[in-house]
Amino acid sequence: MKVCRRSHFNAAHRLYRPDWSDQKNQEVFGKCNNHNYHGHNYNIEVWIDGDIDPETGYVIDLKIVKDLVKSEIEERFDHKNLNLDCSEFQNLNPTAENIAIVCYNLLRDKIDSKFKLFIRLWETENNLVEYDGM
Amino acid sequence: MKVCRRSHFNAAHRLYRPDWSDQKNQEVFGKCNNHNYHGHNYNIEVWIDGDIDPETGYVIDLKIVKDLVKSEIEERFDHKNLNLDCSEFQNLNPTAENIAIVCYNLLRDKIDSKFKLFIRLWETENNLVEYDGM
Amino acid sequence: MKVCRRSHFNAAHRLYRPDWSDQKNQEVFGKCNNHNYHGHNYNIEVWIDGDIDPETGYVIDLKIVKDLVKSEIEERFDHKNLNLDCSEFQNLNPTAENIAIVCYNLLRDKIDSKFKLFIRLWETENNLVEYDGM
Amino acid sequence: MKVCRRSHFNAAHRLYRPDWSDQKNQEVFGKCNNHNYHGHNYNIEVWIDGDIDPETGYVIDLKIVKDLVKSEIEERFDHKNLNLDCSEFQNLNPTAENIAIVCYNLLRDKIDSKFKLFIRLWETENNLVEYDGM
Amino acid sequence: MKVCRRSHFNAAHRLYRPDWSDQKNQEVFGKCNNHNYHGHNYNIEVWIDGDIDPETGYVIDLKIVKDLVKSEIEERFDHKNLNLDCSEFQNLNPTAENIAIVCYNLLRDKIDSKFKLFIRLWETENNLVEYDGM
Amino acid sequence: MKVCRRSHFNAAHRLYRPDWSDQKNQEVFGKCNNHNYHGHNYNIEVWIDGDIDPETGYVIDLKIVKDLVKSEIEERFDHKNLNLDCSEFQNLNPTAENIAIVCYNLLRDKIDSKFKLFIRLWETENNLVEYDGM
Repeated sequence: MKVCRRSHFNAAHRLYRPDWSDQKNQEVFGKCNNHNYHGHNYNIEVWIDGDIDPETGYVIDLKIVKDLVKSEIEERFDHKNLNLDCSEFQNLNPTAENIAIVCYNLLRDKIDSKFKLFIRLWETENNLVEYDGM
Repeated sequence: MKVCRRSHFNAAHRLYRPDWSDQKNQEVFGKCNNHNYHGHNYNIEVWIDGDIDPETGYVIDLKIVKDLVKSEIEERFDHKNLNLDCSEFQNLNPTAENIAIVCYNLLRDKIDSKFKLFIRLWETENNLVEYDGM
Repeated sequence: MKVCRRSHFNAAHRLYRPDWSDQKNQEVFGKCNNHNYHGHNYNIEVWIDGDIDPETGYVIDLKIVKDLVKSEIEERFDHKNLNLDCSEFQNLNPTAENIAIVCYNLLRDKIDSKFKLFIRLWETENNLVEYDGM
Repeated sequence: MKVCRRSHFNAAHRLYRPDWSDQKNQEVFGKCNNHNYHGHNYNIEVWIDGDIDPETGYVIDLKIVKDLVKSEIEERFDHKNLNLDCSEFQNLNPTAENIAIVCYNLLRDKIDSKFKLFIRLWETENNLVEYDGM
Repeated sequence: MKVCRRSHFNAAHRLYRPDWSDQKNQEVFGKCNNHNYHGHNYNIEVWIDGDIDPETGYVIDLKIVKDLVKSEIEERFDHKNLNLDCSEFQNLNPTAENIAIVCYNLLRDKIDSKFKLFIRLWETENNLVEYDGM
Repeated sequence: MKVCRRSHFNAAHRLYRPDWSDQKNQEVFGKCNNHNYHGHNYNIEVWIDGDIDPETGYVIDLKIVKDLVKSEIEERFDHKNLNLDCSEFQNLNPTAENIAIVCYNLLRDKIDSKFKLFIRLWETENNLVEYDGM
């Protein structure tokens, strides 16, 4: 049984590697490399896979997941510049893939290891990624 | 190859255990424990996984699935109080997880065992569950 | 210039008139008349129409509208039985139309009269109403 | 008869007035005032209101509107920092209201004056504005 | 007070005028002029504007509108070729604008003249039209 | 890590087998067998499953996937009659399942074999299929 909580945060970012030339960053990251940043409304789905608790009928109370996503993800990233404001991306290019990995790692320690966890992250309504820790 | 049919039903429910005190029900189920019930527009996805029939180009005619969902799910639960009107939840707390299990079991017998089945159920646009019978 | 804040609440309700016979209630309100209630995820849009404030670039800070909707609408109706728990519907049939009127009236006094106000309310993804106070 | 074309662009922005103190900007614009910017996936609807051309059955070919929105709006604002990269917002706070006005003005001159025009702009899926030039 | 019912139908169509040359049809209608037709999932909103009936709390029972849309619109156009199968478009180019007019006219006679009526029709999720009879 | 690009195309089709009688086609395919075709707005999700490239932070640049989907899928099928205009369906019934297989095969050769690929295809907002090559 899997359960899921959706949430969202709005952030600015820029894709580039500081050890690459401007030209190479432009070739690889195109308009996502805009020096002054651009931004997205990120939608995140946090999926938890485990057994149903016969006593409550819950796998996990989604209110707990909602609060965790609020404290660990929304408060950290909402209305922020991922590159400049967030230590998680100080040495990490904030692609959708890397944001999903960071979100996974932020939540993994807070969620009982008996549960599997995976993250689905929309950067736009047409581009999304999914990460399950492996 | 997997195929899916989406549908929906609107129902009232209350989360609680009759063998628990009011106080414990409130602690565990919070506002979902409201004595006079609340309600949701449930969205359900019925996924069927199997081989494509080379003659028709269908895994299964989704019209059949649509009719099954209508007779087995919609007519049973739409515009009902799950706790009071539906025998399936007489002794079962109508969490999203348990509703998904009930829907799975209602459909499993009606769908050829050569097909795998799984159910995705949205309680709200931010809370959903998925169940595959295991 | 119009601005809008979307929000939602989940509630149970039943459509009927206590001064009508069961038979007449059934004829007029059909399955919405289920004695034990059913429920919906209501989506509400609060639209405010007025001049842009040249100093801020806002018509009105939507954070203020968000907080108003939370205190006046969500906390009042979310996870409630509209017929049994909400005094606003003690003598008023909780149709989508009447819920929109009640929401309009609850907000109208809290929003500066220099602004026009209208409410759009979804009962399901296929049924909605709009009310502007007239 | 009204016709509408939807489109979108992803941009960073910051709400503030350079002539205000940091403290006042924070009081008025809250987290939208983050110094390092944040961002959104903006969705824009361009509505055109006019008579149907009996020869073509079109009010206006929406392909023309699509191309106009691409050249005038998307190429100007997509993957940009509205405050730093876009001259339109050099002296204008990029609130949703002001972005809608700017988009309206950019399109108004390119669309035959026999048509009325209005713009609907989503900053998030819960916050939107509408502007018709008046 | 306005109320709305959403519905949909799936149809093939081709945009062209039989009295124009192939070349002119291609210039004006582009890929929508494909000789062998293409198709869409049309979404339709039927909006009815009138006074609330104090007895029922309804402007009009949306079940009645649902049934009208089913009999007048869905059964007529769903899974049809608008140009070849539907007499309404025998001499009328099936643009979104003209489809909206046809739907308006089909419903106008069936709905009490005390109500105003307007139609919103999506041809794709990015192209839509609105018609109110004027 | 999985990444996904969404896109869409609008096409006409008819479900039938030329080696079957009209009566049998009607029995099996119902209104989808309409002789003059009907149509859909197809939504397609192209999912790619592979390792993240530590240098770029991408599994694969979704811009590449976007361009591939445009050249291989959209340009081939958009505003076409799948039965008449598209050689892929000359001897293949264009069910959603078969369209997904054709799209998979068109993309499989263009995408590095180190990546797994799967396709999700919506025929309507309620009917969808998923195919992973097996």
